[in-house]
Amino acid sequence: MNKKIMTLALAAMCCVGAQAQEKLFNSASVQSPVVNKDGTVTFNLFAPKAVKVEVTGDFLPTQQIDIPGYGKYDAPGVAELKEGKNGVWSFTTDKLAPEMYSYTFNIDGMTGVKDPANIYVNRDIVSFTNIFIVSDQKGDKGDLYKVNEVPHGNLSKVWYNSPTLIMQRRMTIYTPAGYDKGGKYPVLYLLHGAGGDENAWSELGRAAQILDNLIATGKAKPMIVVMPNGNPNCQAAPGEWSWGMYTPGFRDGGTGPTAPAAASIPESFMDIVNYVDANYRTLKDRSHRAICGLSMGGGHTFHVSLLYPNKFDYFGLFSAGLHLENGTYEASFAKQIENSKTFAQQSAKLFGSKPKLYWMGMGKTDFLYQSTVDLRNYWDSKGYKYEYVETDGGHIWRNWRIYLTMFAQKIFK
Amino acid sequence: MNKKIMTLALAAMCCVGAQAQEKLFNSASVQSPVVNKDGTVTFNLFAPKAVKVEVTGDFLPTQQIDIPGYGKYDAPGVAELKEGKNGVWSFTTDKLAPEMYSYTFNIDGMTGVKDPANIYVNRDIVSFTNIFIVSDQKGDKGDLYKVNEVPHGNLSKVWYNSPTLIMQRRMTIYTPAGYDKGGKYPVLYLLHGAGGDENAWSELGRAAQILDNLIATGKAKPMIVVMPNGNPNCQAAPGEWSWGMYTPGFRDGGTGPTAPAAASIPESFMDIVNYVDANYRTLKDRSHRAICGLSMGGGHTFHVSLLYPNKFDYFGLFSAGLHLENGTYEASFAKQIENSKTFAQQSAKLFGSKPKLYWMGMGKTDFLYQSTVDLRNYWDSKGYKYEYVETDGGHIWRNWRIYLTMFAQKIFK
Repeated sequence: MNKKIMTLALAAMCCVGAQAQEKLFNSASVQSPVVNKDGTVTFNLFAPKAVKVEVTGDFLPTQQIDIPGYGKYDAPGVAELKEGKNGVWSFTTDKLAPEMYSYTFNIDGMTGVKDPANIYVNRDIVSFTNIFIVSDQKGDKGDLYKVNEVPHGNLSKVWYNSPTLIMQRRMTIYTPAGYDKGGKYPVLYLLHGAGGDENAWSELGRAAQILDNLIATGKAKPMIVVMPNGNPNCQAAPGEWSWGMYTPGFRDGGTGPTAPAAASIPESFMDIVNYVDANYRTLKDRSHRAICGLSMGGGHTFHVSLLYPNKFDYFGLFSAGLHLENGTYEASFAKQIENSKTFAQQSAKLFGSKPKLYWMGMGKTDFLYQSTVDLRNYWDSKGYKYEYVETDGGHIWRNWRIYLTMFAQKIFK
Repeated sequence: MNKKIMTLALAAMCCVGAQAQEKLFNSASVQSPVVNKDGTVTFNLFAPKAVKVEVTGDFLPTQQIDIPGYGKYDAPGVAELKEGKNGVWSFTTDKLAPEMYSYTFNIDGMTGVKDPANIYVNRDIVSFTNIFIVSDQKGDKGDLYKVNEVPHGNLSKVWYNSPTLIMQRRMTIYTPAGYDKGGKYPVLYLLHGAGGDENAWSELGRAAQILDNLIATGKAKPMIVVMPNGNPNCQAAPGEWSWGMYTPGFRDGGTGPTAPAAASIPESFMDIVNYVDANYRTLKDRSHRAICGLSMGGGHTFHVSLLYPNKFDYFGLFSAGLHLENGTYEASFAKQIENSKTFAQQSAKLFGSKPKLYWMGMGKTDFLYQSTVDLRNYWDSKGYKYEYVETDGGHIWRNWRIYLTMFAQKIFK
């Protein structure tokens, strides 16, 4: 059979679904966002009868807002679009630094309107935003977060049994390019924050792209990355659980409508390690295990480091939520440290075992800033060794991608 | 360390991103869509200054439109929402049959507006729609498409080398629940349509849910399902390729801006089979291999069946796009069949080898209906055995999910 016979007339075999048709056959062809050659970005929105159109996103100067009981927050800035020809509204940013950015539109009092011209979105807990990446082709952040012409690792959504939580649970596992060729690999356990789920790091965190790009350039060692679900009473991300397609509120966000969990994530953590060691070609000793996490996941990492001081050699706390003894955010973490004998004993064991790296990253305006100060003060008073990095900005994904990029280059070396 | 110490104050460690905040702390709390107890569904949209709001989706009666050069299409119906209190617009459907449905809003001339209250979406080629599922708890379609309390298979995004296409390419692989316990499994190759990609069947097609649910109830055998990318000059789905986050047009939809491919998908198909056989615990004989696809993927299946008559025992053509010898849609497929000696020879070989199942499904109003009539007429004239199922509706995902459900229950038995 010759090649001619095999030729399939692509154009004649469209399999467009209902909504896609309009776009295909009656396209207004508005392009948005457009990353311009000078590094600015233009948003275009067809809204012929709108009175006021705004774009809100993390590329605009933030405004700090105070949330009672929570502290200060970096709220996204807002900019007005202007109406041009044919009902298309536009706004062009200043030159943007390399980064992955997110945005939505506000139209006449409706908020959170997605850009119909942009098919790239991220879900952050209970809301969707459009995303785009600005890169400078010089290996800066935008380039690290992009898919480049490099060997790619695989991403799997894996169901495993947790005997401690008495539950089938879902996690995301990254295996590096070349894993299918054989060999054994170290493992990084990468934990999300409250309200997040096992999809957070691979979507908002660009973990697969960051690892692909760092490994391809020799800046990080090839490693397996395990991203479990950190909500102990929840099997999986919204929509992947058996509770239906409801939109969770934040406070049950990702945790769903179930009874209290059988145990905490740190207490059940070795279920995950055991499953991964049994089902992947891992290097099973302490020196080939790292764990890190953001916010609540930083808290999980902190407690795992105290619970299992000999199981991991690398710890990373990103904007960590640190608590002991039923502490609430309002309570002084320094006071909790002072009162907890168990904490003192476990910290001594942990640092006595000489972990290769205890790393902490924190944003200068993060509402959790003080608890990391308290922890550092205590560890300094004991002479315990750790590394600390402070960045601009608050409790935001932009910082957590930076921290992962830094941490991944420091482990298994 | 006791349980108390491990307790983490979830509420205090929120890791909300920029856009999520508004939703969390200033929520209008509009619920949409609401599946009511009587089986109707209510859409609610906060649009305080809108003049006209419509919902369009595949749960409304379709209207056939004629697209020159393509034939008749089932366009989604449109219904108007009415303004109620506090700027919230609403519409309630009739009682809906169990199904997964999709929709978007039209607001004052803007089309394709997503529902800000619904975090569940599907991408269909170049557009996003919100989705929801209606189920009757009696094992009907909606129940098959839902995530139920059953053992779940794993979904992986796998990069493999295609020597024939001279390219690293991405595919989605489903391994059934229990695969991690050992054993060897049959393989179903499941192909998407033009403009689609390796994500289409697991997202729009609910393939993992259908297989999980059929396997859990003993209606289908545990099997591996391989969903490759069917665009021969394209590595991966939009956003997973290295061409940046641009929104592809339909006619380069999913295929990107590259040069012509080194070979067709059917010609390169054994690259996929060889990779899967080398990297998964498969049963490697003909009787444990099935292949099926929708539209262009049905055409690929058809050509694979002619090219490799002895490699697969089960073939499924779903609303297949059938062409030979550079045929265009306008050209009579019957005429092409009549003129092609190669086709006659390969068909004779194929049916001479007695495949266990050659299955075809087609919608009554599908614009590709006639070519399957032509093929059936030819095969009837030769006495070749096949199964044929005709359903209501046209060239739509609703039919392809039904065909997968039927086909998956007929194979490997």
